[in-house]
Amino acid sequence: MKPILVKTANEMAKISREIKGTIGFVPTMGYLHEGHLSLVRVAKKETDVVVVSIFVNPSQFSPNEDLDEYPRDIDRDIRLLSELNANYIFLPTENEVYPDGYKTWVNVEKITQILCGKSRPTHFRGVTTVVAKLMNIIDPDFMYMGEKDFQQLVVLKQMVKDLNFRTKIIGCPIIRENDGLAMSSRNKYLSKQGRKNALCLQKSLLLAQKRYNEKVFTSNKIIAEIADLIENNKGVVDYIEIVDSYTLEHLYELKKGCRILVAAIIENTRLIDNIEIT
Amino acid sequence: MKPILVKTANEMAKISREIKGTIGFVPTMGYLHEGHLSLVRVAKKETDVVVVSIFVNPSQFSPNEDLDEYPRDIDRDIRLLSELNANYIFLPTENEVYPDGYKTWVNVEKITQILCGKSRPTHFRGVTTVVAKLMNIIDPDFMYMGEKDFQQLVVLKQMVKDLNFRTKIIGCPIIRENDGLAMSSRNKYLSKQGRKNALCLQKSLLLAQKRYNEKVFTSNKIIAEIADLIENNKGVVDYIEIVDSYTLEHLYELKKGCRILVAAIIENTRLIDNIEIT
Repeated sequence: MKPILVKTANEMAKISREIKGTIGFVPTMGYLHEGHLSLVRVAKKETDVVVVSIFVNPSQFSPNEDLDEYPRDIDRDIRLLSELNANYIFLPTENEVYPDGYKTWVNVEKITQILCGKSRPTHFRGVTTVVAKLMNIIDPDFMYMGEKDFQQLVVLKQMVKDLNFRTKIIGCPIIRENDGLAMSSRNKYLSKQGRKNALCLQKSLLLAQKRYNEKVFTSNKIIAEIADLIENNKGVVDYIEIVDSYTLEHLYELKKGCRILVAAIIENTRLIDNIEIT
Repeated sequence: MKPILVKTANEMAKISREIKGTIGFVPTMGYLHEGHLSLVRVAKKETDVVVVSIFVNPSQFSPNEDLDEYPRDIDRDIRLLSELNANYIFLPTENEVYPDGYKTWVNVEKITQILCGKSRPTHFRGVTTVVAKLMNIIDPDFMYMGEKDFQQLVVLKQMVKDLNFRTKIIGCPIIRENDGLAMSSRNKYLSKQGRKNALCLQKSLLLAQKRYNEKVFTSNKIIAEIADLIENNKGVVDYIEIVDSYTLEHLYELKKGCRILVAAIIENTRLIDNIEIT
């Protein structure tokens, strides 16, 4: 069944308020891959009506980032969402989301300035603002997000808690290509060789889990090993951090349930990945 | 009928979501006067269920301001709201609103940095944040606010529009004492003489309207006259501004529908007032 396309915030808000039953919401920037689709499938299973938004949000890109080249294929996105029986696709224009004279920003402090926030200082402000807007428009019971952008998940959970949104955020597992590369719309930027080199991200995280199993707990030791593996594959490390899964606070020693987060530049593409240590 | 007192956000959100019919919301910092009560009366007339919040919001006070001395009289407030048949009073603690680890702020740019924002640079960030929280908790159809804090009204309307809150903000006329002083919880700080001197605020605004009627349109001329009148009454001018009622942009000439906003310190108390030129 083809989802209903909705282009304006007013129309979407009106529809949402008239829905009986629970609403599951999947926010995306389009160019959907199996990661996104896995979220839609969970939402279909757990809620009555599924709304997917497709909006390449300019405010989460810095001027020097890839907003213009960010891949787009709306027709394909709609076809994929039809196959999954998503009920609504919210597809606003940039001017609909940020009209002339727009002035309001939602900012989560501290946890947005570390990790990805160091190299992308205004990124999370863009994310939290657009998600606050989308939640007000769609009023979902549940919002589904991948764990690949793990910091984003933690930041948005903090926002939802702090601002008393009624929506519950559900984090879903990272979906990977057959060879282990975490799915990302940006993977398409990679050359054949870059694509191969990019596998070092997950490999380094699996190595960390192996070291933990061998009772190596010192964060610095493990971070050094991860860095070696990434650099040996022509990656440039942006950060490697071992953190508490709830606060994102640095841990000097690994413990069960902590997260290792990595960001590295392969060729010209910044990729991220992470693992929960179990 | 005694209103139902609600102390936690979870409880209030649950109640709000179960209300059939429209919700009218009046946010206050308590110590209610006729200005607040006029809002409750309008809300009772226009909506099915009226929720009044009482919360002295610390984040809208600067460290050097009067948070600790800000007047409080909850028993009296409850009695007054009972007489008006308000349905619910939301009365959260500070820790309920800003629990440990609180990190999220809603900020409206530009129009919060002029007028009252100049001498109170973090004030509006506190206001917008707490109102965003209250709107998420109470999910009102209408929110009623006095026009006395005119900049606050414009800032909150901007936030509601920008963040796609479904709530409609209704601005209501300034309520005055018999002698014309705009009602404010801070009027109680004034001595008998200060109370008399404070009348210069409204007098100066009425003088401006008179000048406009006499076809004096030059803002600078009128601002100078207002300043004289305030200073002659031992007031210290914080600002006198003639602005567009929607954008708060400075106007070089008065026009029908513009606003004149004044802030002045009388004794140690900062008072504000404004008038729409008609």
